Amino acid sequence: MLRAGRMSYSTYLRPRRLRMTLPLPLALLILFSGIALAHPSQTAELSSGQQKLARITVVPWPADIQAGAGQLPITQSFSISLTGYSDARLERAGERFLRNLSRQTGIPLKEYSPNAASAVLVVHTDRASLPVQDMDEDESYTLDVTSSGAKLNAPNPLGILHGFETFLQLVQATPDGFAAPAVHIEDKPRFPWRGLSMDVSRHFISFEALKRNIDGLAAVKMNVLHLHLSDDQGFRVESKVFPKLQELGSDGLYYTQTQIRELIEYARDRGIRIVPEFDMPGHSTSWFVGYPELGSAPGPYSIERRWGIFDPVMDPTRDETYKFLDKFIGEMTALFPDRYFHIGGDEVNGKQWDANAGIQEFMRAHDLKDDAALQQYFTVRVQKIVSKHHKFMIGWDEILGPGMPKDIVIQSWRGQDSLAAAAQQGYRGLLSSGYYLDGMWHASQHYAVDPMSNADAKLTSDQQKLILGGEACMWAEFASEENIDSRLWPRTAAIAERLWSPQRVQDVDSMYRRIDALSWRLEFLGLTHRSSYTAMLGRLAGTDNMAPLRLLGDLLEPASLHTREQAAIKAGEIETSETPLNRMVDAIPPESESARDFSATVNAFVASKFTDATAESILRNTFASWQQNDGQLRVRIEGNSLLRELAPISRNLALLGASGLQALNYIDNKEPAPDGWKAAQLVIINQAQAPQADVLLGVAPSVEALVQASANDPSAYGASH
Amino acid sequence: MLRAGRMSYSTYLRPRRLRMTLPLPLALLILFSGIALAHPSQTAELSSGQQKLARITVVPWPADIQAGAGQLPITQSFSISLTGYSDARLERAGERFLRNLSRQTGIPLKEYSPNAASAVLVVHTDRASLPVQDMDEDESYTLDVTSSGAKLNAPNPLGILHGFETFLQLVQATPDGFAAPAVHIEDKPRFPWRGLSMDVSRHFISFEALKRNIDGLAAVKMNVLHLHLSDDQGFRVESKVFPKLQELGSDGLYYTQTQIRELIEYARDRGIRIVPEFDMPGHSTSWFVGYPELGSAPGPYSIERRWGIFDPVMDPTRDETYKFLDKFIGEMTALFPDRYFHIGGDEVNGKQWDANAGIQEFMRAHDLKDDAALQQYFTVRVQKIVSKHHKFMIGWDEILGPGMPKDIVIQSWRGQDSLAAAAQQGYRGLLSSGYYLDGMWHASQHYAVDPMSNADAKLTSDQQKLILGGEACMWAEFASEENIDSRLWPRTAAIAERLWSPQRVQDVDSMYRRIDALSWRLEFLGLTHRSSYTAMLGRLAGTDNMAPLRLLGDLLEPASLHTREQAAIKAGEIETSETPLNRMVDAIPPESESARDFSATVNAFVASKFTDATAESILRNTFASWQQNDGQLRVRIEGNSLLRELAPISRNLALLGASGLQALNYIDNKEPAPDGWKAAQLVIINQAQAPQADVLLGVAPSVEALVQASANDPSAYGASH
Repeated sequence: MLRAGRMSYSTYLRPRRLRMTLPLPLALLILFSGIALAHPSQTAELSSGQQKLARITVVPWPADIQAGAGQLPITQSFSISLTGYSDARLERAGERFLRNLSRQTGIPLKEYSPNAASAVLVVHTDRASLPVQDMDEDESYTLDVTSSGAKLNAPNPLGILHGFETFLQLVQATPDGFAAPAVHIEDKPRFPWRGLSMDVSRHFISFEALKRNIDGLAAVKMNVLHLHLSDDQGFRVESKVFPKLQELGSDGLYYTQTQIRELIEYARDRGIRIVPEFDMPGHSTSWFVGYPELGSAPGPYSIERRWGIFDPVMDPTRDETYKFLDKFIGEMTALFPDRYFHIGGDEVNGKQWDANAGIQEFMRAHDLKDDAALQQYFTVRVQKIVSKHHKFMIGWDEILGPGMPKDIVIQSWRGQDSLAAAAQQGYRGLLSSGYYLDGMWHASQHYAVDPMSNADAKLTSDQQKLILGGEACMWAEFASEENIDSRLWPRTAAIAERLWSPQRVQDVDSMYRRIDALSWRLEFLGLTHRSSYTAMLGRLAGTDNMAPLRLLGDLLEPASLHTREQAAIKAGEIETSETPLNRMVDAIPPESESARDFSATVNAFVASKFTDATAESILRNTFASWQQNDGQLRVRIEGNSLLRELAPISRNLALLGASGLQALNYIDNKEPAPDGWKAAQLVIINQAQAPQADVLLGVAPSVEALVQASANDPSAYGASH
Repeated sequence: MLRAGRMSYSTYLRPRRLRMTLPLPLALLILFSGIALAHPSQTAELSSGQQKLARITVVPWPADIQAGAGQLPITQSFSISLTGYSDARLERAGERFLRNLSRQTGIPLKEYSPNAASAVLVVHTDRASLPVQDMDEDESYTLDVTSSGAKLNAPNPLGILHGFETFLQLVQATPDGFAAPAVHIEDKPRFPWRGLSMDVSRHFISFEALKRNIDGLAAVKMNVLHLHLSDDQGFRVESKVFPKLQELGSDGLYYTQTQIRELIEYARDRGIRIVPEFDMPGHSTSWFVGYPELGSAPGPYSIERRWGIFDPVMDPTRDETYKFLDKFIGEMTALFPDRYFHIGGDEVNGKQWDANAGIQEFMRAHDLKDDAALQQYFTVRVQKIVSKHHKFMIGWDEILGPGMPKDIVIQSWRGQDSLAAAAQQGYRGLLSSGYYLDGMWHASQHYAVDPMSNADAKLTSDQQKLILGGEACMWAEFASEENIDSRLWPRTAAIAERLWSPQRVQDVDSMYRRIDALSWRLEFLGLTHRSSYTAMLGRLAGTDNMAPLRLLGDLLEPASLHTREQAAIKAGEIETSETPLNRMVDAIPPESESARDFSATVNAFVASKFTDATAESILRNTFASWQQNDGQLRVRIEGNSLLRELAPISRNLALLGASGLQALNYIDNKEPAPDGWKAAQLVIINQAQAPQADVLLGVAPSVEALVQASANDPSAYGASH
């Protein structure tokens, strides 16, 4: 019932998804995190200023931050005033700041202070922003918080927007009520282009969901929302010139031009540019449903429901194609004010071209030796159209080839080397390789990916400036309106920090502590990254108490995208845009906080040489709860087809609980666990670590660590136990 | 920091809040629940049809329901068609039904079926609803579900709306996917007026929040949303005739007339009437800020920030007062199409009247012997105005007096006897006593309150028909936009069932099982009754892991409203509309599901004569977690002023854990617990049961039950343990 029928997967695997190179191993990162001296470490000996900084949860971490004395209380009498240059956007930003501060603290707050003298937070800026936000604009700000007040200064409103977000994140519950610590912050971004690319074609994401996610992006000082607006599975913007694009290509799920204008205004209010992408010449089936003459085969075409790379591709040999694109790009560049226009350009399989005699003839006549050359011919012509409409063209790696002017921008799924090579040729670029959120990596893995990795050695300082930043990417095969927020948050914050903060900011523990704190703050912006998990668990639990299912779900993580795709191939199943995304794998967040906490407790217990009685007590209780849970869950699993696939996982968790308890018994008895027992446990653990039902038991590695430790020489044990 | 300064509480206690009579003890209810034969009992021996009914979670329980054979699968190909009479409202209802079914199951569903023959669910109705919904309209429907399809029939669209909700609640996860069981349902309400009264004056509740709560009301077949639109603390509707009402009396927090019209349309689409209340002559300070001439003292007036009964009251002796009210009521009766218009009429303290020589002179001249007589004079004149504008007047008990025509309706805070007495005089009435959601009762307590209690013996059958139903009431001293949903849901469903289902439906366990299932379904309507708790816990936990705070919070319940008010008086504190509602008491739901589950486990263990090893294992693990939790929480509590008040409660929970573990040890050793130990535990338990920080430890009574059991003769113990 859950998945559609069988079919070939030959076109299923998208190269740009699978070629992502692995980042540095996590262990290596943790090893080196101690040397990130500019950033608070929780283990080293700290001065009082450092201790104070270590409590601050601002993300991205500011370029320069100094602790002061005392703190600024936040009470009902908190107020702000705007001085210097002001405009309606700044005023709205001030109102929004007060509203968010009120939500975040639960303290009712009043409107603006009538005069600067009496305001608690005095805001000052000198001049207006550009009418259309540009990445060259100064985004810096200075924030001074003392025990008696605060000052936020910036050259233009963009910096004020960023400073407001920093202030909100400084505010915490303290022994004396809510307060912001006294600090001096001088902040500015490392990269000028810090974005999120959202695929709204494969699963449509509503206008409302886009708005709340724009609030999330603003909270972490991202400045670009790149919308992947067309693909084989749907055309998502109203065209008035070519209305059959949305009428026949969208299932009725598209943004009206009125909504787009509202969205752009909403994003501009928050310092965020909207960059539209219309993928061409491939990934374009949805265009051809209404306009089959654009394709390289006669059609008819229908909206694609499957995932993968498909044959339909624009016909680059007909002048009518370029006339259509000229009108269409003219309409869309008028609708989207941003200076950049994304034409996709990825993943053309060339089959329609190969099969079309006229196109083959054209290639011979124009000396185009292969499909790549034909695509380059197309892209060069499209670039001229984009340029004619006063925009810079941006596209995936494939667009870079002979005949391209230097003003285009490359978005790289291939990686830093590809980016550096482009920079050596004088092209600007963005990194997206390593930032694919649908890959279900941990935040720490994305955090380890740097756009400039290896670039220092290869590139001149002028060439380095061509690396503009990066974009997180969220492809939507397995993301719907319901779970999109949990796929984006809080992991996007780790990428935002990599793109904003100085390169030296590398402490993974600090990053997690701060994005955990961000996570609950984001809920007050209306994001559903936590609440959707509970709602989806409720659906899975049905009429039953949710607690046993939650205990299991809290310890699970989705397997990698590759694993999920391979499992489907192996099972002969196919997932489509009509497949319900209502399984456990769809409900759980990409990264288990409970598994991370459990791991920390195991580490603390082992590091204490087994003397940490509190940690041991917590571990015993945890293992016992895993054992009990399986019995409680089993009866529910039998009555519910959606839960059936979880039965072996629940059983494995109970077995891990038994292993863990026995390991603790050996440790308490100060006898090394026997080799035979240990070997048997490793078999169990190994089995528990294998992906099943597209999920992983995130706690298995830590149980293994404990089992290994229990088999060690007892002379390593603490004396006081 | 959390509360404002000291002041007298002399005017603080509102009689209608404190006089609520206690319902039948819960124990008595449970005792009698077995005789509710028309309703599935989980303990008795059940036929297969009864077993099937026992799995169904529809709330309110239908008037008549019969189980059939098999079930109807819900898949991507599910469809509906509308036959017979149709209109735009029905079509929207069908679309909403499909959308909600899709959300609830996670299964993508298509639009209407083009023809009835191929639709899975065929809907049929004969005729249109009235242009303005009236309580005399037929709300009945018949729903037939078989393994091959379903039919929903009703005389008019109101019944179809109810039938859609029933169908949604029939759908559950089963071993064979989502499905609705085969059933035959013939359903209709017991009472024609089933409402919720919401106070939007004391804390403003946004337009959006009202809309999502209307969806909640529709889900449980309520048909009235009564809005308490004005009170001392705010005037919440735009008046174009007297704009200073909202301009000076609302802090800018009011509904525009456009919003009101949209809200009425939204509610009508869902079979819900909007009944407006403008409280007069008391509870009217907010009117006088803009129009002080209406008051009985010269003013000036300002918006009241405190809670209680205040002196400002309309001047009933001036003709200008009635001229104003005539124009105002004319404007509002044109805005609100409902046939009923609520004038409040409660809680006049008469102090302004007593102090005004002109008013005293008027009373003598008109032979009005006391304040009650003067209020009656006012109410009689206002009733004539309401009647002139073609509406029936409704008001609280106080409006009933000499000179009232029989077409008014009494909303009773005094109770069933007051209602019966009014009926004996020929007046129609609604019960609200016993349905005050802000009192923080358990759902079971509200469920035990019946509008007809004692009425059978006293009233003729014609008089009984004058009892129209009831309204749940939500006063908003301690409810804000943020926690209003958790105050309303799911407890409102218990009251909805009392007002819809036959009187014989009384099984408390069944009611809880069904409202628990409703609770997660409501989340898919956008209600925040669960997610707001998590968000508010996140705020309380600040930068720390939320788990230990959640463990504690899950076991807490808010103390009664009376206890909270008395605690504030004792502490010399005053809570106002500016007091942050960000404490634990504001975050937790009114009823702890975890405490209810714990109690069930203790009961099962004791009932098994201590032989239920699974229950014992769960109890041991639970007690151990309580002990551990205090240590984990204590460090956080020290750093956070909002948590400090919870320190003794967390400590008490740890002590309860120790008591529970020791009780289990005595039981396992088959020795009765010593008297001295038991006495000491009862002291601890007694202390844990006392309200602190305005919350109660919901698990204390069950720990006491276990301690008591452990002190019994071991011969009561099971043999196989």
